[in-house]
Amino acid sequence: MADLFHVVGRQRACREFRPDPVEDDLVERCLEAATHAPSAENRQPWVFVVVRDPELRAMVGDLTRRAWRGGGRQHSEPRLASGLLTDVDRGAEGGVAAAPVLVVVCGDTRLGLEVTLPASIFPAVQNLLLAATALGLGSALTTLPVTFGAELRTALTLPSTVQPLAVVPLGWPARRLGPPRRSPVSEKAHRDRYGAGW
Amino acid sequence: MADLFHVVGRQRACREFRPDPVEDDLVERCLEAATHAPSAENRQPWVFVVVRDPELRAMVGDLTRRAWRGGGRQHSEPRLASGLLTDVDRGAEGGVAAAPVLVVVCGDTRLGLEVTLPASIFPAVQNLLLAATALGLGSALTTLPVTFGAELRTALTLPSTVQPLAVVPLGWPARRLGPPRRSPVSEKAHRDRYGAGW
Repeated sequence: MADLFHVVGRQRACREFRPDPVEDDLVERCLEAATHAPSAENRQPWVFVVVRDPELRAMVGDLTRRAWRGGGRQHSEPRLASGLLTDVDRGAEGGVAAAPVLVVVCGDTRLGLEVTLPASIFPAVQNLLLAATALGLGSALTTLPVTFGAELRTALTLPSTVQPLAVVPLGWPARRLGPPRRSPVSEKAHRDRYGAGW
Repeated sequence: MADLFHVVGRQRACREFRPDPVEDDLVERCLEAATHAPSAENRQPWVFVVVRDPELRAMVGDLTRRAWRGGGRQHSEPRLASGLLTDVDRGAEGGVAAAPVLVVVCGDTRLGLEVTLPASIFPAVQNLLLAATALGLGSALTTLPVTFGAELRTALTLPSTVQPLAVVPLGWPARRLGPPRRSPVSEKAHRDRYGAGW
């Protein structure tokens, strides 16, 4: 038993993994959770490419590094606290791609308008992350490598209708992570109208 | 205790609600779960406008109905099984707006590039839906009313930087819903490359 509220309160990006393998049945439990997300018209437009092949993982790692060095870092640097920047930096420079499993999450435009795909795909990604957390696996929602969608498409032989939207590493965390830091509801919620406070 | 995998496996769109009120502390637990989702640079760009005011809820209901009659129904009709079509039809024609609480979920472009907002907002929506399910509340991810973003902006006094992306009704379900129907993982997952099967 993994209490939903406990898991939700602990889920956090992991960017450093032990090399130990992740069994297929654990990956499958995460994907099964993902497929239970809602989607527009229940058309389930998600496609999961589960990458274990070391060369393909290295390729995804390369794309991540290129996206980070080619603009991501510059964009994020002024806004991230230095601790988080260091963590993201290590992740983008190889930490994330070192996970034994990289799930490339895509949307199929045959099963949903391109503009509505994110509303169907990201709830599935969130289920995947929560399931991983419940199983003790580290995970993260990353989008840096999808900057190079064309390269991903070629390497993973994705049809033109299948768009990569996120990459989720799965692996055993190198160290125990504390709970995530979040602003309280009172700063994010409004009663009936924006600005009315909570 | 609400087991994560049990909740994930039961979460399903509810479009018919009892009129009984939903206490603030339950809404707050759902929002707290939502705020624990990941977001780009951990900037937490979500904004939740919790609408209880009957006139405002009727207004959201009107927008939903207009979006449905003005194209949504025509778009969905050929693709939805008749049972689901009937259910969505009733929901769009007033069922969803009859929930005592409508959470208008928005993204703030001051806290995230507009193009990356869905990757930060929809994981939060999914946490909200799961928390509601764990608490026994009915909920649904709806996007029909945000077709009329300008009208929502005026009625809810949203600043120009705050974009409505979804509306989630919260209420006590009119009847018990069975588990959602989903395709198995084997139809959605691929090993290393698309088409390689699972």
